[in-house]
Amino acid sequence: MQKLTIGLFGFGCVGQGLYFAINNSTGFKTSIKKIIVKNKSKERTIGKENFFYDKWDVLLDDSINVIVELIDDTDEAYAIVTEAIKRGKHVVTANKKMLALHLKELLALKDQYNVSLLYEAAACGSIPIIRTLEEYFDNEALVKISGIFNGTTNYILTKTVNDGISYEQALKNAQASGFAESDPTNDVEGFDALFKTIIIALHGFGVIIKPDDILRFGIRTLKQQDIDYASRNGYKIKLVPAVSKLDNGKINAFVMPKLTSDKSHLYKVENEFNGVIVEGLFSGEQFFLGRGAGSHPTGAAVLSDISALSYGYSYENKKLIQQEKLVFTNEVSIKIFVSSDTKKSLDKIPLNNIEESFETKDYFYRIGEVNVGELKKVMEKDIRELVFLAAID
Amino acid sequence: MQKLTIGLFGFGCVGQGLYFAINNSTGFKTSIKKIIVKNKSKERTIGKENFFYDKWDVLLDDSINVIVELIDDTDEAYAIVTEAIKRGKHVVTANKKMLALHLKELLALKDQYNVSLLYEAAACGSIPIIRTLEEYFDNEALVKISGIFNGTTNYILTKTVNDGISYEQALKNAQASGFAESDPTNDVEGFDALFKTIIIALHGFGVIIKPDDILRFGIRTLKQQDIDYASRNGYKIKLVPAVSKLDNGKINAFVMPKLTSDKSHLYKVENEFNGVIVEGLFSGEQFFLGRGAGSHPTGAAVLSDISALSYGYSYENKKLIQQEKLVFTNEVSIKIFVSSDTKKSLDKIPLNNIEESFETKDYFYRIGEVNVGELKKVMEKDIRELVFLAAID
Repeated sequence: MQKLTIGLFGFGCVGQGLYFAINNSTGFKTSIKKIIVKNKSKERTIGKENFFYDKWDVLLDDSINVIVELIDDTDEAYAIVTEAIKRGKHVVTANKKMLALHLKELLALKDQYNVSLLYEAAACGSIPIIRTLEEYFDNEALVKISGIFNGTTNYILTKTVNDGISYEQALKNAQASGFAESDPTNDVEGFDALFKTIIIALHGFGVIIKPDDILRFGIRTLKQQDIDYASRNGYKIKLVPAVSKLDNGKINAFVMPKLTSDKSHLYKVENEFNGVIVEGLFSGEQFFLGRGAGSHPTGAAVLSDISALSYGYSYENKKLIQQEKLVFTNEVSIKIFVSSDTKKSLDKIPLNNIEESFETKDYFYRIGEVNVGELKKVMEKDIRELVFLAAID
Repeated sequence: MQKLTIGLFGFGCVGQGLYFAINNSTGFKTSIKKIIVKNKSKERTIGKENFFYDKWDVLLDDSINVIVELIDDTDEAYAIVTEAIKRGKHVVTANKKMLALHLKELLALKDQYNVSLLYEAAACGSIPIIRTLEEYFDNEALVKISGIFNGTTNYILTKTVNDGISYEQALKNAQASGFAESDPTNDVEGFDALFKTIIIALHGFGVIIKPDDILRFGIRTLKQQDIDYASRNGYKIKLVPAVSKLDNGKINAFVMPKLTSDKSHLYKVENEFNGVIVEGLFSGEQFFLGRGAGSHPTGAAVLSDISALSYGYSYENKKLIQQEKLVFTNEVSIKIFVSSDTKKSLDKIPLNNIEESFETKDYFYRIGEVNVGELKKVMEKDIRELVFLAAID
C-alpha cells in the first residue's frame, strides 16, 4: 500500500462529500493535508486551519503526492492538473469538461510522467461505470452504451413530466438541492452529458471523440405539448446519450433526449439518479443505477479513486491500446421525434420515411428517420432554437 | 502482462460459453491448451483433439499456469482446485457451492501458495458484483446487499406468476433453456442463493458466514393462493437473499422469498436476470442488473476473470482484513408473510405483532414479525414442508 498525502482543490458540494466519506469510512485511513479554496471570507463547515488560498501551497509541497481536483473553473483545473502531473503527483478529478476537452493531452501527459489520473466521479456519480468498463468489460465485445448520464436534467425532467412543476421552478429546486452545477447551461444544453459520453466512449470502446464531432441536443426547448405527447403515448422524456459500434465497425455517438417506454430500464430512473445500459455480445444487456449527483454519492466516488490509488491503481486504457484505430462516424440513420410551433421549422429537418405527422394551429410534430450527420449540420444553425428533438426506438 | 496457459475442467453450458467468448473477443488473445471432460463418447461441438479425460493431464502439466474449473461435482471440484493451488496454478471457478463450503480453507490455501483464486461467475452471472464490492466499494460503509441472485428460480417465478404456467412446466423450460443446473433442488430450495450470499457477504462486509448459520427458505412450497395474494396486492414474489449490517454492528443474512412491490428495483427483474441492490452510507442505493445464468453471459464473467489474471489481479479481501472481527447474528426481527393449508402449521410459526390474519377452509396466511433465529429453529423441523414464507417490507 502506497502512503497518500492529499491536497484538495475545492470545498464545494463534492469536496464536502469527500470530506464526510473520508471521515466516516471504517476501513480507510487517510487525511487531507491542505485544502485550496478561492474565497477567504466564506464561512466553512470545518476549521480555518485546513484552508489555503494559493494553489502553489499544494503544488510546491513535495510531501503531497496526490491532488484531488474538485473546482468549477475548467481552465484553472487544467492548469492545476497538468502542473501536478508534471510534478509527479497523482490526480483524482471529477471535472468531466476538462477531461473531455483535453483527453488526448492528459493521457499522454500522465503516461509521460508515470502517474495515475483517475476520474470515476466524472461520469455518472456513484455508479462505478469507468472502472467496470475498464476492468470488467475489457474483453467483452461491447455493442452499445447508453443511459441517463446527467442528474440535473433528469431531476428537471422528473419534476416537469411526473409532477407538473414548471421548468423554471424545477431548475431552481435542482440548484437548491445541490444537483445543478454552477452554470445550468452546461446541463440543460447537454454539454455535461456530452463530456461524460466522451469519457465513457474512451473506456468502453477505446476511441477518443472530439466534442465537436458529436450531435448534441439538450432539453431547453422542451414544450408542454411534447410532454403531453409523451405521456399520452406511454413515454417518459429522458436525456439519453448513446455510443454505439455500428455494423461496419465504426463508432457513432450522440446526445439527445429520448422518448423512453416502460420497456426500458431507464423509464424508472428518476430525479438525480443516473442509469447506464451496457450491451455486449457475450453478456447481453447490463444495467447500472445509482445517484448521479449530490454531495455524498459523488464524494464516495472520489474516495473510491483515492482508495484505488493507495493500491497503485491506474487506468490502463486497455481498449484504446487493443483496438485497431477506430473511426468515428455520423453516417448512420436513427428514428426521431421532432416538434416545433411552426411548420416552416419542421420542414428544415431532413426526415426520411416519415411515419407520423401531426399538426394543429401552433404545434407540429413528425416522427421519421434522419441521418445523424445531416441532422447535426442543420442543428448548427438557428433552427436549433425552434425545435425539440428526441430519439425514439 | 502475464502469459496464461489454460487448462479447462468441464465443457458444459458455461464452458462452451467461455469458449465462444474467448474466440469472439477482439482484444484478448489467449487459448485453452487442454479441456478435461468426463464422458469420452459424448458428441462435442469442437474437435476431439481438445479433450482429455484425466485431470492429471492438466494438473501435472507444468506449462499450464491457470485452471478454469467449471464442473458440477463439488467434491471433485474441491479436489482439483486445491491440487492446482498447491501446484502454484491460478484458479478461476464458477463453483459457488465449493466456495461457500470451503471459503476459509481456500482463502488460506491461495495465500499460502501465493496464487489468485477468482470467481466472478460464481455470483450473479454477468453482473460484476464481486469485483465491484472488492474494488469500488472497498471503503464505502455498506449497510445492506440484497437482490435476486438465482436465475433459475427467478425464471420459474416469472413464468408461474406472470404467465400462469405451472411450476413443473416452468422448471422444465428452465432446464431446456440451460438456466437450471443439473440438480434443481439446489436452486428451488435456496441453496444456490445461499452460497452466493456467503460469497457476497465476504466481499461486501468482510465476514465469513457458515452455511448452517443462515436461515434458508426456497420457493418449492409456493402455492397458487400465495401467487394470487401477491398479485391482488401489487406484489411479485421473488427469491431475495439479504445481508445487512445491523445497528449494533453485527451482520445478519437470510435467504427467503420476498413480496416485492413495484417500488423495488427488483420488481422488474424477470426471467433469468439477476439484480443486486447495494446500499451504502455514502452513495445511497445502487442497483446492478444483468443475466444471472446462461452460457454466454456466465462465460463472459469467466473470461473477465481470466483477463484480470493476465494483469496479475487477485482479490485482496480488503474488507476481511480491514474489519474488526465482525459477528454474525440471527437476533433480529423481520416482517414476514407466512401461509399454509392448515391452521395448525401456521400456529407453529412464532409470529409477533400480527398485522393481518386470513383464513378460509384450506388456506391460511398471516403477516407479522418474527425473530430470524427463532424462525430458523422452527424451520429445521418438518414444518418447513407445510408452509410458505416470504419477507415483506
